Amino acid sequence: MSKVYLIGAGPGDLGLFTLKGKQIMETADVVIYDYLAHPDLLGFCREDAEILYVGKKGGDHTLPQDKINELIIAKAKEGKVVARLKGGDPYVFGRGGEEAEELVAAGLTFEVVPGVTAGVAAAAYAGIPVTHRAFTPSVCFITGHEDPTKEQSTHHWEAYAKSASTLVFYMGVKNLPDICAKLISAGRPADEPVALVYRGTSCRQRSFVSTLQDAPAEAKRLKFAAPSIIVVGGVCSLRDKLGWFEKRPLLGQGVVVTRAREQASDFATVLEDLGACVLEFPTIAVKPLPEYAEVRTAVENLGDYGWVIFTSTNGVDHFWRILKDMGRDARVFGGCSVAAIGPATADSLRERGIEPDFVPPKYVAESVVEGLLARGVQGKKVLIPRAKVAREVLP
Amino acid sequence: MSKVYLIGAGPGDLGLFTLKGKQIMETADVVIYDYLAHPDLLGFCREDAEILYVGKKGGDHTLPQDKINELIIAKAKEGKVVARLKGGDPYVFGRGGEEAEELVAAGLTFEVVPGVTAGVAAAAYAGIPVTHRAFTPSVCFITGHEDPTKEQSTHHWEAYAKSASTLVFYMGVKNLPDICAKLISAGRPADEPVALVYRGTSCRQRSFVSTLQDAPAEAKRLKFAAPSIIVVGGVCSLRDKLGWFEKRPLLGQGVVVTRAREQASDFATVLEDLGACVLEFPTIAVKPLPEYAEVRTAVENLGDYGWVIFTSTNGVDHFWRILKDMGRDARVFGGCSVAAIGPATADSLRERGIEPDFVPPKYVAESVVEGLLARGVQGKKVLIPRAKVAREVLP
Repeated sequence: MSKVYLIGAGPGDLGLFTLKGKQIMETADVVIYDYLAHPDLLGFCREDAEILYVGKKGGDHTLPQDKINELIIAKAKEGKVVARLKGGDPYVFGRGGEEAEELVAAGLTFEVVPGVTAGVAAAAYAGIPVTHRAFTPSVCFITGHEDPTKEQSTHHWEAYAKSASTLVFYMGVKNLPDICAKLISAGRPADEPVALVYRGTSCRQRSFVSTLQDAPAEAKRLKFAAPSIIVVGGVCSLRDKLGWFEKRPLLGQGVVVTRAREQASDFATVLEDLGACVLEFPTIAVKPLPEYAEVRTAVENLGDYGWVIFTSTNGVDHFWRILKDMGRDARVFGGCSVAAIGPATADSLRERGIEPDFVPPKYVAESVVEGLLARGVQGKKVLIPRAKVAREVLP
Repeated sequence: MSKVYLIGAGPGDLGLFTLKGKQIMETADVVIYDYLAHPDLLGFCREDAEILYVGKKGGDHTLPQDKINELIIAKAKEGKVVARLKGGDPYVFGRGGEEAEELVAAGLTFEVVPGVTAGVAAAAYAGIPVTHRAFTPSVCFITGHEDPTKEQSTHHWEAYAKSASTLVFYMGVKNLPDICAKLISAGRPADEPVALVYRGTSCRQRSFVSTLQDAPAEAKRLKFAAPSIIVVGGVCSLRDKLGWFEKRPLLGQGVVVTRAREQASDFATVLEDLGACVLEFPTIAVKPLPEYAEVRTAVENLGDYGWVIFTSTNGVDHFWRILKDMGRDARVFGGCSVAAIGPATADSLRERGIEPDFVPPKYVAESVVEGLLARGVQGKKVLIPRAKVAREVLP
């Protein structure tokens, strides 16, 4: 049954995406996105999902809003499950309300999957709690990029200034001088702390704290551009004490991981936790050799072997791929003992139904031979399936 | 290495928890929580994790804040990874800022995992986008339950009223008459829409829309209590059109699932998507019979059998449990053909390394027999491991 999900993609850190958002992405027929909080978000999609970019970057809309609405409705009317992915939260300056109204008008059912909003999260990553009992009992989120078709500003600067709230401006970096000037003239002290956070929660995050008076010049000097959030209020003074994310040792360092994709992800995660911007770019692929004949013959005659020794997870992967091609399974080892060199290789066998009879305590030849001798390998035929790989440079 | 994570648990729907929050919960040594957005959150914990409740419910603090801080610090100083789970977002009225300051003062490292905040999500589930271009360029989150030690209110009612923002009050239901009266006397129209959302995003969610003038009486009549959020502003008028969550057919219906736990979860998910409040309460457990002797004998003599037919996933589970006890694996089937009745049983075998030789197209005796005859079962010994279960009432 057709259904549209308006999904908040969160502020940038892939880890701040919601469980429900991920689950829907994994099953959706169509994914329509405009701004990508994190490029790997699309990695959750089904392989055969239709993925459509309707790009919004600052004011540059690849598709105008009414065309986006039409597209979502058209896909849903085809009976498809549509994931409409929006940066941050769909209802916090995301125009999600307008999209929802169009869906209702078209007679379609929809659900909203809220997301973590940048105004809270980018500030938290920069060390700024947007509320704090010692400073303020409220926080206001304000668009810094008002509807350009409006003749008169709907902002009530005096009220913002007098509220004593923490003020968080979204999409306001272009208007920073205007925002600061208006707040000062409405009564906020010129030396009130202001923070800017660029690409908050992503590996490209940068931030600084200044004052209403000096922030515009400082932003210019430090070349802060969109997307940045602006935080105004006493809580910004906590940044130096409570900042943690920008202390990561590899923050913003681009690292290209060139290992084969199958082996790259764990490594990438470790680097990302250190702050690095990881681009997985496998230049080699581990591939089975095209000639399977040798292995096939061994499988057919596995009854002749006393032991089969697997030396790597690649070896296990490839052996099972051939087994599968042959329409065979773990039962081919019915008459053999099986050894695994290393715990990862052993686990790889366990996942395939084989509990290794022997995992040597040390991964050196002596230890392997000693263990096999103790297990009566003498006089028996031994098969050692190699990770027969051709390492070829990817295009 | 010790580390403290201040984690936002989200507003109530388990699906709105973050990927990163879940991942940390799964590895933390100690979990300290005060208010549980969803009881199943603790299901993510390691089985051997230390789980500590420092309960906060409204004003009723099981442990005062300074004792909570001491506890977090003590656990971290033992070298442990501590997950400090807080409802919603740790920095939106969560006192997370104070906890972070204490951690820094104690020389400990910490990270913040922001969460989806109730002010946005509960409103969205009720059909209210907190921002909308047709209504307002800003939204303010305000604590409705000010620090009781404060001599004078720090709220600037006039500024809130004049901001033209959507106003969202957290923890304000007790003070609703006061909040409405102050906003009206500060200049908000008495007929401005107000919404209350009780237990937003949970299966117990209820909401209504009224006006500043009438909301207090209406809340009393409908028996709205904490935890509820209060939304003030024109956007509340969209609720009737954009509400979706409260239309779920089983919303708020308590359903006790008494199936055995292993089989209950998928069923529970379907019910939850329909809105039900599911309590998994297995009254029966599917257990293997204590006497394994019969099965053990069959395993030892499996070479005598031509076919092994598995009739259920329970049967597969129990057979493999016995195999494991015996230190054996999929290889025991080396000389047999294997059949699976039903696709789930087949998948269960595949997970254990066996690709079934035969899965009958229909799950009736005739189809099974016909298929086996066509595969030459005549004259061969056949083993049918049953899901030998004792269904016993749990205490």
